[in-house]
Amino acid sequence: MSQIFEHISPADFFYRNRDIAGFSNPSRAIYSAIRELVENSLDAAESIGVPPDIFIRLTRIKESGRGVSVYELRVQDNGTGVPSQHIPSAFGQVLFGSKYRLKQSRGTFGLGGTMAILYGQITTHHPAHIISSTGDSRIYEYRLSIDIRRNRPIILQRKSLDNDHKWRGTIVEFRLEGDYFRAMPKVLEYLKQTAVVNPYANITFIDPRGRLYMFTRATTSMPPPPKETKPHPYGVDVEMMQRLIQSTDARDMLTFMVETFHRVGKSIAKNFLKFAGISPKRDPKKLRPDEVVHLVQKMKTFDEFLPPDASCLSPLGEELLKAGIIKEYQPEFIAAIQRKPSTYSGHPFIVEAAIAYGGNIPRKGDIVLFRFANRIPLLYDEASDVSWKIIKSINWRRYKATPDMPIAIAVHVCSTKIPYKTVGKEFIADRPEVSREILFAIRYVARKLQKFLTRVEYKQKELRRLNIFAKYLPKIARFSTDLAEKKRTPNVDKLIRSVKRIEED
Amino acid sequence: MSQIFEHISPADFFYRNRDIAGFSNPSRAIYSAIRELVENSLDAAESIGVPPDIFIRLTRIKESGRGVSVYELRVQDNGTGVPSQHIPSAFGQVLFGSKYRLKQSRGTFGLGGTMAILYGQITTHHPAHIISSTGDSRIYEYRLSIDIRRNRPIILQRKSLDNDHKWRGTIVEFRLEGDYFRAMPKVLEYLKQTAVVNPYANITFIDPRGRLYMFTRATTSMPPPPKETKPHPYGVDVEMMQRLIQSTDARDMLTFMVETFHRVGKSIAKNFLKFAGISPKRDPKKLRPDEVVHLVQKMKTFDEFLPPDASCLSPLGEELLKAGIIKEYQPEFIAAIQRKPSTYSGHPFIVEAAIAYGGNIPRKGDIVLFRFANRIPLLYDEASDVSWKIIKSINWRRYKATPDMPIAIAVHVCSTKIPYKTVGKEFIADRPEVSREILFAIRYVARKLQKFLTRVEYKQKELRRLNIFAKYLPKIARFSTDLAEKKRTPNVDKLIRSVKRIEED
Repeated sequence: MSQIFEHISPADFFYRNRDIAGFSNPSRAIYSAIRELVENSLDAAESIGVPPDIFIRLTRIKESGRGVSVYELRVQDNGTGVPSQHIPSAFGQVLFGSKYRLKQSRGTFGLGGTMAILYGQITTHHPAHIISSTGDSRIYEYRLSIDIRRNRPIILQRKSLDNDHKWRGTIVEFRLEGDYFRAMPKVLEYLKQTAVVNPYANITFIDPRGRLYMFTRATTSMPPPPKETKPHPYGVDVEMMQRLIQSTDARDMLTFMVETFHRVGKSIAKNFLKFAGISPKRDPKKLRPDEVVHLVQKMKTFDEFLPPDASCLSPLGEELLKAGIIKEYQPEFIAAIQRKPSTYSGHPFIVEAAIAYGGNIPRKGDIVLFRFANRIPLLYDEASDVSWKIIKSINWRRYKATPDMPIAIAVHVCSTKIPYKTVGKEFIADRPEVSREILFAIRYVARKLQKFLTRVEYKQKELRRLNIFAKYLPKIARFSTDLAEKKRTPNVDKLIRSVKRIEED
Repeated sequence: MSQIFEHISPADFFYRNRDIAGFSNPSRAIYSAIRELVENSLDAAESIGVPPDIFIRLTRIKESGRGVSVYELRVQDNGTGVPSQHIPSAFGQVLFGSKYRLKQSRGTFGLGGTMAILYGQITTHHPAHIISSTGDSRIYEYRLSIDIRRNRPIILQRKSLDNDHKWRGTIVEFRLEGDYFRAMPKVLEYLKQTAVVNPYANITFIDPRGRLYMFTRATTSMPPPPKETKPHPYGVDVEMMQRLIQSTDARDMLTFMVETFHRVGKSIAKNFLKFAGISPKRDPKKLRPDEVVHLVQKMKTFDEFLPPDASCLSPLGEELLKAGIIKEYQPEFIAAIQRKPSTYSGHPFIVEAAIAYGGNIPRKGDIVLFRFANRIPLLYDEASDVSWKIIKSINWRRYKATPDMPIAIAVHVCSTKIPYKTVGKEFIADRPEVSREILFAIRYVARKLQKFLTRVEYKQKELRRLNIFAKYLPKIARFSTDLAEKKRTPNVDKLIRSVKRIEED
């Protein structure tokens, strides 16, 4: 009856628990694999300020039965490229990557690409094929698989080629089992929405039947690329503080505060240290553990820290957020808001929201919600998302809205780290700070909608009123004319115009 | 602009991504911490066939502001105990544990207990205190914290005490920041439902205000404990097959098949190897990689393997599944089903479902759903759960049910591995095999409900019909008497009785 204790590698953990990484079933696996690679490609191009050119090809290799087939997925980009020495680990080792910095990126877990390849390996046992160049004189080509138990890449083949044309980018090609035809609607929806919120990207997709989908860029002007940032003092925890103290070169607390934290200048640092009762001359490395805890607690309650600077983030902007809804539904009314930057656990974030009414928005008895996070659409598990929960918690009647009205809402959250609830990045957790910002954003646009609906209501009432005048005034005029035994009925048009309080459309 | 590549430890991964492990906010953190430790305790007692005695105490240490406080959580059990040499890793290292076997247990990820302690550490920076004995002559006591970057326990203090009274069990005590008062309804609901489906457990909880909640066992008879099992041939993937081949002592394929897989006897093994075109005399370790892939593919399509044996699983049984609903709602009608065991990815599983109607079930415009997995209730993120999706996909009118009816459904899935979608074990992914079983189970009980509702409808119709007879027959009788100029109206009671087709309630 004795228990057997053992340690498993992170690759083994995700192999055993592929459901938590978005690979629950054959259809979801295809969707997740395409998505993870496209997002890596977008990040790779954006990080060097180049408009992304992404080419995706999914080829059916053979049937495995019950609707499931073996596919070959190839995703090519013109991004930064992976340095040769990092290629094996970047694609063959879990929890190895370049996404662990305080910087807005679509990838969060440093896991997606490797997870897709791992899933391909366990379903088809075919090695992955990676070609990459950083644009220097060489192109590197690897065939590799993953030693799941040890979480190590196994290099099966390595080639280096001349790069005469200075090609730069990455090509990932591997096989996986999946069900494209069930996944198709979501895959196409994903690519369409991605193209809308990344209008500077070219995305080309050739599906297993050879159908070509092209999402051509509408602009080559790129938003300023997201920048790496320092942690904001609100939301630094004891662990992070210890790491910052360990890695600092500062010899005194004043310098430490100024050099380490986001938007902390000398005078704020001085005021804070006074507030915390810690001498500005103390050596940070000599703080006792209880003083570190005290420092962190004081940081959370000091109210003079500046709000985070939004320049490290890359929000969509109100126009782009509206664009998708307008293109899809041609609504009668649309309003959008970009909230001021806020912060949770040391991560700055910005919430943007739009609301639209009418047009072709379906009246499905519920609000239509579009969710975006760091410029990617989220399509699965809507009901668990913080935005959906907030929409459900709002008393819409207060805004003159009823469930049967054609209303669409879009929410975009951008942050140096999105608090996803699943490794598959399907939905955002309800961190209180993020919830509050989403609530305020939706309330703001809801008030705009309310004004619009009030105006519509007023117009309708006025039109009814004018209709009554228009119907009865001529009759009254004729009756009065008859009564006075006059011949000519007076013209009532002027009278009708005088009671008009609104302009006709 | 160069990217920085780095490797992070699994502890660091979960530190950065606590949302995916159920620690999104202060209220959820309290709930998750209690839950993870209670589930470990239940597993620890059940694994040695002892009725669990679990004592939970949550003490408020101090306010941290904004509704959040520092609490001390202590959970004590009478389970198997952790051997001294494993205590530091079991509580101070992520992805180390005893839950990685093919055996039904509440824990799945080998993560929960350590994650709770890790969360406590980053919010309070206080070491954890572990006391445990396997019932031998010594009790071991540790104070430890976690080196998150290296994923290693740091032992701050270690003591060994005499165990004169042969105490056996584990005590975990640590501090964490949280919001108990917001978490309270879920915590109490969790304990209540846990007590219902584990009626052989004593659960005692003292909350921060000193209120005592006792859930006393209703029986000391334990279900047969879940047993470790071999992988079932359906759903073995290439990775698993390679591991099995690596670790086998068998010198030929026939022996390998019989020794390695669940319910594979000699004659089935022979038939299968013939079907797969592999000689029974081949040495499994000498199979070429493409032959391994071929073997796995053939395994999925061979239809003579026996279904998995349920004896390694510990389902609730129909009575226990009904008990919770009956206790809560006293319904007019209840039906339950235990499906035959099935399998996904090599894991046997059993689905049980119950449906109830009337009584105190709220008419909230939607079905009330209770979800259980391996004898624990799932309370969060219902809308993303496979059971909820299936309930939503069913055309309930076909079963004479409408959304405004008071209907409750309970679903229990037990398996050697529950395909959770989140590390926080909030909801089950829609693996096709599991979905199908849940659908069949719910359809079965829905048909029982339909019969009940048809009977109710018929009774109501009959009562209306009888009422009409009862109302008009005497009048017709009187009228006919008058018409015939007779004095005595005949008695129609017999006539009314003769048209009765149902018994009165």
